[in-house]
Amino acid sequence: MDHRALHKLSYGLYIIGSRKDDRLNAQVANTVFQVTAEPPVIAVSINKGNLTHEFITASGVFSASTLCSDTPLSFIGNFGFKSGREMNKLDGIAYKIGETGAPVITENAVAYLEARVIQQVDVGTHTLFIGEVVSAEVMSEKACMTYDYYRQVKRGTAPAAAPSYTAEERKAGPRMAKYRCTVCGYIYDTEMGDPESNIKPGTPFEQLPDDWTCPVCGASKGQFEKMEE
Amino acid sequence: MDHRALHKLSYGLYIIGSRKDDRLNAQVANTVFQVTAEPPVIAVSINKGNLTHEFITASGVFSASTLCSDTPLSFIGNFGFKSGREMNKLDGIAYKIGETGAPVITENAVAYLEARVIQQVDVGTHTLFIGEVVSAEVMSEKACMTYDYYRQVKRGTAPAAAPSYTAEERKAGPRMAKYRCTVCGYIYDTEMGDPESNIKPGTPFEQLPDDWTCPVCGASKGQFEKMEE
Repeated sequence: MDHRALHKLSYGLYIIGSRKDDRLNAQVANTVFQVTAEPPVIAVSINKGNLTHEFITASGVFSASTLCSDTPLSFIGNFGFKSGREMNKLDGIAYKIGETGAPVITENAVAYLEARVIQQVDVGTHTLFIGEVVSAEVMSEKACMTYDYYRQVKRGTAPAAAPSYTAEERKAGPRMAKYRCTVCGYIYDTEMGDPESNIKPGTPFEQLPDDWTCPVCGASKGQFEKMEE
Repeated sequence: MDHRALHKLSYGLYIIGSRKDDRLNAQVANTVFQVTAEPPVIAVSINKGNLTHEFITASGVFSASTLCSDTPLSFIGNFGFKSGREMNKLDGIAYKIGETGAPVITENAVAYLEARVIQQVDVGTHTLFIGEVVSAEVMSEKACMTYDYYRQVKRGTAPAAAPSYTAEERKAGPRMAKYRCTVCGYIYDTEMGDPESNIKPGTPFEQLPDDWTCPVCGASKGQFEKMEE
């Protein structure tokens, strides 16, 4: 079995919000999809170990905000590589309380859906929450983030991250070193730098400021390892 | 509720194959997604009225082939706007019989997955078939078709369908008429023509050959209606 075939499925990237009593939490997810049109019903697959899983199970409601394609990596990392058990992930993030009482992330969102769970299906490590849509709004006509695009950016292979740097220039120069974050898998590519932190293309890893952190998960420089050529 | 928010969910485009005894069938679907990694489990939402629904229910197996982005509209239309009850949709199509006995479409496919159903969830008009992946192969490194791209092409708004025709030229000329297929919703845009049928950009609808048919669903010219300006 070639597991790479699973990477040929296309997804978007979403922030799933939920609550338990008056506690709020949100996490990133890529598996949100519509299962029926009449009535509109959506589903999302959530890992049983996540705090959001506990919250959706308790309240029976969730929101799903579709991210725009220029969402900063650090924003995604905040919801994907931190746990709501240790911090309030909504601090400093724009959101509103929706009709269901769930938090709806509005920052970097092109649209959102709110749903009430009508079925939940145990699928082993995850639960599939199936919910009827009770509220929905489009907030922007920006392009949606796709999971494929996000993975390319995180791997340091997306040309969009270095718009001034052409394919020809890349071919011409010597290959520059890459460093992988051992926490989240983000790759620092010397050729591209880290535009979100104002690190110019070509900046060697060693010359990054000591307080530079992984743009996705916030890991320190010491948690990176050099990749083989 | 703004239903357009549902269109902000991202999907790929897939051909789902199944069997019932020695009868084979396949249909197009956009809702294929992974629900767990260990073991690899995928799900697909299928309309209860479809022949493929009857076949998956009977055999408990299905395949999902991920289409490449340059799949012809007519290929998609064959699996999306015809019924296997009236014709053999696999006639003239490249496929193989997979490990599960289900037909695996290999034409225009970048990869496929085969699954055995472990749960099926009644979600009203559709059934969600959840299956453990038993076989998987990547066949091409071509780009995957996304549902968003497919919808743009079908609406006659995707620039890729008329590569020689620039945005500037489009702006400069008078607006040309558009005709909508009343069967499948495909839009014939005079400015773009129909490259798959060798109809040049700028060809008026009236001058299309009498035997020209909708590139998606095969409807005749008489089944098109002119759109309001």
